[in-house]
Amino acid sequence: MTASAPLRVTVWNENIHETRAGSRTVELYPDGMHGAIAAGLEELLGSEVEVRIATMDQPEHGLPAEVVDTTDVMLWWGHEDHPGVDDAVVQRVYDAVLGGMGLLVLHSAHYSKIFRKLMGTTCSLRWRNDGDRELVWTVAPTHPIAEGVPDPIVIDQQEMYGEFFDIPTPDELVFISSFTGGEVFRSGATWRRGLGKVFYFSPGDQEYPVYHHPAIRRVLANGVRWAAPVTRTEPIDATQHPRGWFEA
Amino acid sequence: MTASAPLRVTVWNENIHETRAGSRTVELYPDGMHGAIAAGLEELLGSEVEVRIATMDQPEHGLPAEVVDTTDVMLWWGHEDHPGVDDAVVQRVYDAVLGGMGLLVLHSAHYSKIFRKLMGTTCSLRWRNDGDRELVWTVAPTHPIAEGVPDPIVIDQQEMYGEFFDIPTPDELVFISSFTGGEVFRSGATWRRGLGKVFYFSPGDQEYPVYHHPAIRRVLANGVRWAAPVTRTEPIDATQHPRGWFEA
Amino acid sequence: MTASAPLRVTVWNENIHETRAGSRTVELYPDGMHGAIAAGLEELLGSEVEVRIATMDQPEHGLPAEVVDTTDVMLWWGHEDHPGVDDAVVQRVYDAVLGGMGLLVLHSAHYSKIFRKLMGTTCSLRWRNDGDRELVWTVAPTHPIAEGVPDPIVIDQQEMYGEFFDIPTPDELVFISSFTGGEVFRSGATWRRGLGKVFYFSPGDQEYPVYHHPAIRRVLANGVRWAAPVTRTEPIDATQHPRGWFEA
Amino acid sequence: MTASAPLRVTVWNENIHETRAGSRTVELYPDGMHGAIAAGLEELLGSEVEVRIATMDQPEHGLPAEVVDTTDVMLWWGHEDHPGVDDAVVQRVYDAVLGGMGLLVLHSAHYSKIFRKLMGTTCSLRWRNDGDRELVWTVAPTHPIAEGVPDPIVIDQQEMYGEFFDIPTPDELVFISSFTGGEVFRSGATWRRGLGKVFYFSPGDQEYPVYHHPAIRRVLANGVRWAAPVTRTEPIDATQHPRGWFEA
Repeated sequence: MTASAPLRVTVWNENIHETRAGSRTVELYPDGMHGAIAAGLEELLGSEVEVRIATMDQPEHGLPAEVVDTTDVMLWWGHEDHPGVDDAVVQRVYDAVLGGMGLLVLHSAHYSKIFRKLMGTTCSLRWRNDGDRELVWTVAPTHPIAEGVPDPIVIDQQEMYGEFFDIPTPDELVFISSFTGGEVFRSGATWRRGLGKVFYFSPGDQEYPVYHHPAIRRVLANGVRWAAPVTRTEPIDATQHPRGWFEA
Repeated sequence: MTASAPLRVTVWNENIHETRAGSRTVELYPDGMHGAIAAGLEELLGSEVEVRIATMDQPEHGLPAEVVDTTDVMLWWGHEDHPGVDDAVVQRVYDAVLGGMGLLVLHSAHYSKIFRKLMGTTCSLRWRNDGDRELVWTVAPTHPIAEGVPDPIVIDQQEMYGEFFDIPTPDELVFISSFTGGEVFRSGATWRRGLGKVFYFSPGDQEYPVYHHPAIRRVLANGVRWAAPVTRTEPIDATQHPRGWFEA
Repeated sequence: MTASAPLRVTVWNENIHETRAGSRTVELYPDGMHGAIAAGLEELLGSEVEVRIATMDQPEHGLPAEVVDTTDVMLWWGHEDHPGVDDAVVQRVYDAVLGGMGLLVLHSAHYSKIFRKLMGTTCSLRWRNDGDRELVWTVAPTHPIAEGVPDPIVIDQQEMYGEFFDIPTPDELVFISSFTGGEVFRSGATWRRGLGKVFYFSPGDQEYPVYHHPAIRRVLANGVRWAAPVTRTEPIDATQHPRGWFEA
Repeated sequence: MTASAPLRVTVWNENIHETRAGSRTVELYPDGMHGAIAAGLEELLGSEVEVRIATMDQPEHGLPAEVVDTTDVMLWWGHEDHPGVDDAVVQRVYDAVLGGMGLLVLHSAHYSKIFRKLMGTTCSLRWRNDGDRELVWTVAPTHPIAEGVPDPIVIDQQEMYGEFFDIPTPDELVFISSFTGGEVFRSGATWRRGLGKVFYFSPGDQEYPVYHHPAIRRVLANGVRWAAPVTRTEPIDATQHPRGWFEA
């Protein structure tokens, strides 16, 4: 509540679509989707955050221990090459979440190794890339992630993601989307894992300018604030306690 | 699991739309919505159930103590005259739920006294009666209420009910609907209250033949089975227990 | 997050035990339990809050519309005369919660009209007033209400409250207590109701100095912060929306 | 609900304590803990179940594909050598759960690979092996797993497991235990994962005769019934759906 050090945010992107000359992604996101996401956070959160970028092509995917250990909230975007993400890096991020780091999982990263490992389910869904209009409805109007978010958010064109979305029951269901084709999707949901918080948010795609949408940027900024660590430690281990250990 | 006495089901309807000569309701439901609902239960559950009808115009709205006390699962349909339901009858049904009776709350009964009293919220929503197509999607495919239910259920024409639906967080969210206009709605949800179970299911309206739809009938039959009492007592009261009361 | 107006807090107490000359309550709480609770909030939250007192013996129980309307978070303590609380005042507080006001329900107020009305259950429990030691364990270590709270809180002597506690499934279970006699109790739990937040916290009794305990004061201060309104309106009402109402 | 084929139950045990001549385990469980557990299920469920045993020392730990594929509900007991369980077998069991198989995770198997993989957390806890009395309290009296279970269950001597138990928020919290030393533990909890159901139940230890306790046997039998598959398929995969795919 008082003046404090800025939140250290790391935006991770596999950065594959962005490397294909002439692709729709390059056109929409000249600085990459990571660039657009980072710009949105800086625009809305200003000095509250320090934003770094990490991409898959960097050594250790840009996520060596010194980066992960100094990240308060990570955002994760992946699509084309989930299997190519090194298991050791996934384990490092996983341990960081269980120890308190916040994690925002974006769109096609529903199928990322890190999200599936944290959820314990397949995280599968129905999909169609056909330019459906997506409407994002708020079902938890007092949740901090919904603060200042229009209800509904109108996204003119989007990939459709539809139920059944094979996730554990969310701790908090914040948004439900509908699409032109009539499908629905639990598009914004949260879970506690260990000492860390996880927020999945589905709007966002490499072929549509979703990360330039002001309301989507607002949700991501709110999500970063919400996911800020309460504490940050190693993942908890089982410990023996003699009887009366808590007595003075 | 073994052969047992049939579930005693009471279908309650305010029975007002049905009394207006020439109304769409009379045309669609010559035996009343209660008649159609009861017929659906008997068709699908056969000797598992004994179904009675109770309507608002009867003495004590058809729900004197001897009826409520011998009801295992009640279904409640109301719309035009929620305020006209006697508070003493509402209290009787409320006490029965807390003591173990199952309750299925249907469509416009979201605004009934009994549902609001059990929920502790306004139970308000957005609405539009304009013949939208409703699609009912299953988000809990292993829930017993979803057993044998097509995904989605297609209802050609329906009143639109949209979020924000001001209910407590459901214990279990089973169905989410979308509408032609793009709205979404948590259309099937459950809550435990005391020793009783409550299932709210929104499809169903006096101007559309929804209670003749085979999939809607399936949901209601599943709901009746699910809401069957585990025990049936008075609502629990606070009780003093000396130290060691549970020791032999 | 920025400097803002202080939270307007109203501590309500039925103030009956405090009026009995020579009672243990008078001895422990010369300024009333409400006085001790208010002092704890002022001690820990300072200029973040403006604390008022309201008691049952005042006109409209000290809760006329102008007080309720200007209260951000209310704390409620009652025990001896729940039935004596006027229904119109209960309805006013209820409407305020549904419109955004935070409410902390304390100890024996589990049986208050306002808590039962918000929960939709009996809120009954097992109890024994025999000086059990209570240990309050944190099961949601990253919840803001648990921030800075020792795990466990040791309360040397307390009334025992034991399961089954007949409440709806909490949105968040924060604390579980055990007692000398071996009973357990979900002693700290939260629910959203409409646009407001409700926190029930069981430690606290008129015969023990619980509201002087530093950790209990910390929980109440955290609870007040957590329950602060996001918005404040009338309770939501159902509203008709033509198709496409959200389009530009 | 009608006469049907028996549930195919597989009780898995690492079977290490049982192989140490002269150990307390050998004395208490001459047929192994798996033998006692299986006997309890057969005693209470009779022809409802067909029970098999599988142990770690068998080829593929007794869990080749043909066993897992023909198992409706699996029970898992491990303690000494979680790391020694082959990852391929863990994956097979994991896939089976996501495809519909029920899983009961017992006592020290909180730290098994399969449970941690399904939960996405460390599953750590506080512990002490000092013969505490454990009391198991029911907090969901209408849950099928609590049917016919005394409240509390009194276990004269047990290993203490205490909070904070690092698990995801349970879908349903059924039991909370207390111990002589004052600790509490969420000792019975359920989660849905994919199309399968998971029940964790902590009472049960190699040094105490817990699996001979009639009430513990009742809980396990109820758990097996509750975890029975609704469907059984491969884990769900993401699938493309053209617009209007659900229309006739």
